[in-house]
Amino acid sequence: MTKLNIPLPGRDYDILIEPGLLDQAGAHCRAVLPRVKKLAVVTDANVAPLYAQRVEKSLADAGFAVKIVTIPAGEPSKSMQMLEFLYDEFMAFGLTRTDAVAALGGGVVGDLAGFAAATILRGVDFVQIPTTLLAQVDSSVGGKVAVDLKSGKNLAGAFWQPKLVLMDPECLNTLSDRIFNDGMAEVIKYGCIRDADFFDELLKCGGREGVMGRIEYVLETCCAIKAQVVLADERDTGLRMILNFGHTLGHAYELAYHYETYTHGQAVAAGMCRAAGLGGKLGGTPEDIPERILQAVKLYDLPDAIACSRTDYETAVGLDKKGAGNEITLILLDKMGEAKPVRMDKQKLLTMVEDAYGC
Amino acid sequence: MTKLNIPLPGRDYDILIEPGLLDQAGAHCRAVLPRVKKLAVVTDANVAPLYAQRVEKSLADAGFAVKIVTIPAGEPSKSMQMLEFLYDEFMAFGLTRTDAVAALGGGVVGDLAGFAAATILRGVDFVQIPTTLLAQVDSSVGGKVAVDLKSGKNLAGAFWQPKLVLMDPECLNTLSDRIFNDGMAEVIKYGCIRDADFFDELLKCGGREGVMGRIEYVLETCCAIKAQVVLADERDTGLRMILNFGHTLGHAYELAYHYETYTHGQAVAAGMCRAAGLGGKLGGTPEDIPERILQAVKLYDLPDAIACSRTDYETAVGLDKKGAGNEITLILLDKMGEAKPVRMDKQKLLTMVEDAYGC
Repeated sequence: MTKLNIPLPGRDYDILIEPGLLDQAGAHCRAVLPRVKKLAVVTDANVAPLYAQRVEKSLADAGFAVKIVTIPAGEPSKSMQMLEFLYDEFMAFGLTRTDAVAALGGGVVGDLAGFAAATILRGVDFVQIPTTLLAQVDSSVGGKVAVDLKSGKNLAGAFWQPKLVLMDPECLNTLSDRIFNDGMAEVIKYGCIRDADFFDELLKCGGREGVMGRIEYVLETCCAIKAQVVLADERDTGLRMILNFGHTLGHAYELAYHYETYTHGQAVAAGMCRAAGLGGKLGGTPEDIPERILQAVKLYDLPDAIACSRTDYETAVGLDKKGAGNEITLILLDKMGEAKPVRMDKQKLLTMVEDAYGC
Repeated sequence: MTKLNIPLPGRDYDILIEPGLLDQAGAHCRAVLPRVKKLAVVTDANVAPLYAQRVEKSLADAGFAVKIVTIPAGEPSKSMQMLEFLYDEFMAFGLTRTDAVAALGGGVVGDLAGFAAATILRGVDFVQIPTTLLAQVDSSVGGKVAVDLKSGKNLAGAFWQPKLVLMDPECLNTLSDRIFNDGMAEVIKYGCIRDADFFDELLKCGGREGVMGRIEYVLETCCAIKAQVVLADERDTGLRMILNFGHTLGHAYELAYHYETYTHGQAVAAGMCRAAGLGGKLGGTPEDIPERILQAVKLYDLPDAIACSRTDYETAVGLDKKGAGNEITLILLDKMGEAKPVRMDKQKLLTMVEDAYGC
């Protein structure tokens, strides 16, 4: 078993990684939640039939009273209505302030259940059991939980740290290639911004099978990098911005296609390729970097470009809104494994994209 | 002007108390929110016509872009639906993470706007401008913000500390006697649990007019007492329980009449009188205390008893729920100005109430 401690002052927690860990969920939760009687497990309609029963059995064996709360799968569940549904389910279960909530699923389940845990009875303990690659490498560190509003994603939420994160890499075997590769874009990102050796290892893995052969190492490395960055900047004001490598332009692609045509990872992959190219034109990013990133994203069937109109870009960077400011932060690579935030004029950035790539 | 600093580590704030302070809101907010551009002011339909314009002008003069968001007056506004309404209004206003929210009104406005501030964009700065006596003495310290759920009051919320609390005692002049006295029950409570001299002063005041003659002293003393208690116990686990003096039985009265017939203060007043009587019978509370508390509540037209069935009491203490536990904490007075929590068997407590008072 791989164990990674996230040393938040006063509320440090462990990330445990091991194949088959779902069946040990009870004992590990009991170790960090000695007084908890009731555990509400939030999951979704895709994940429940695969894993809920095993997790429920393990938790019950450890003496927890368990209620499985199943929400519809998909982003629309990250809503105020579903948050209220969780609150009502928790109260009907008789949850008290000394009980806890667990999230069993991908990013939607983790974000929604985490926000519910942060706010029900003004906050109860929380355990993350992420079952997708994206949730494992992205949502396990940082404590960001949220729901979407009409006007945008993740607009209402909190910072709420888990007491424990349990990752069972065997869960990844049931993911489609599309959803597995969705997570790989973030995995590649961690190499780009912070660890050139890790990036090289990903190239050597050569694809999904190779990654799964070294999955504990891959998950641990990604979480350790995110922890390094986030711990230096828990309230998300400075350094944490480098985690947005590929996301500034990627966000435009997601928005342009209404978060439907492309996965988050596909948009980020195209955003990383473009940011690497722009970094080259601006002179900061070495010439071989775009080619190496292209090579990596291609191994995981991720796109290196997504068509996007100038209008879509303008909307994404807030140029359609009064008072949103004229500057934006783009993350560029100084070399493989080293990222830096660069403040740029929004119009200048988009003109550069248009000149170089015809948008 | 009276200034009381609440010395929370790393996020201390001031409570400012002065007649006419509403017209200085802008300058005082600017001093603690130097970078804020937009300030969303949440108020209700009763308060808006009285004070919103003055506050808006003062804030605008200090360079804030202001949006007044008005909700319907009354407890039903402390809902998930109204929370989402505030989120949508904030986003339509273009609020960013470096902007802020202010609450101008009573407890409902403060609790709802505070929870919205705690969670919009994962938390923005918050200013309290309480306009009722209850909100001034009760909601300004402690950081508790919340909405109600179907299954009960204040069940979803957060701990979110304000950057500043502005109290204009002149706002109290527009309160009905019923609503003024609603706050006086909590004022009397502070004397009972922590300050015998203050309690004696309240008797000397002799009524609303006398209290208003010393209102800065009254408000400051209540907030200072609450701060002492809360600071020793920010997460509400131990000492803070003494703030519940009168509330255990008071809660039963509120519930029995569906929070309609009696105000919170009326229920607390009756609860304090009963708890003082029970303390006498249990032997811990000196004999003269019930009479003195009775004298105080009568000065403010508050009841010393409210009819309540054994069934209503049982529901209020959770005897109708499996797993809610058999014990309850009752706050008793060792002498005037000194309170202590006492764990009691729920059935035994209710039998004692029934034997002594016929319920």
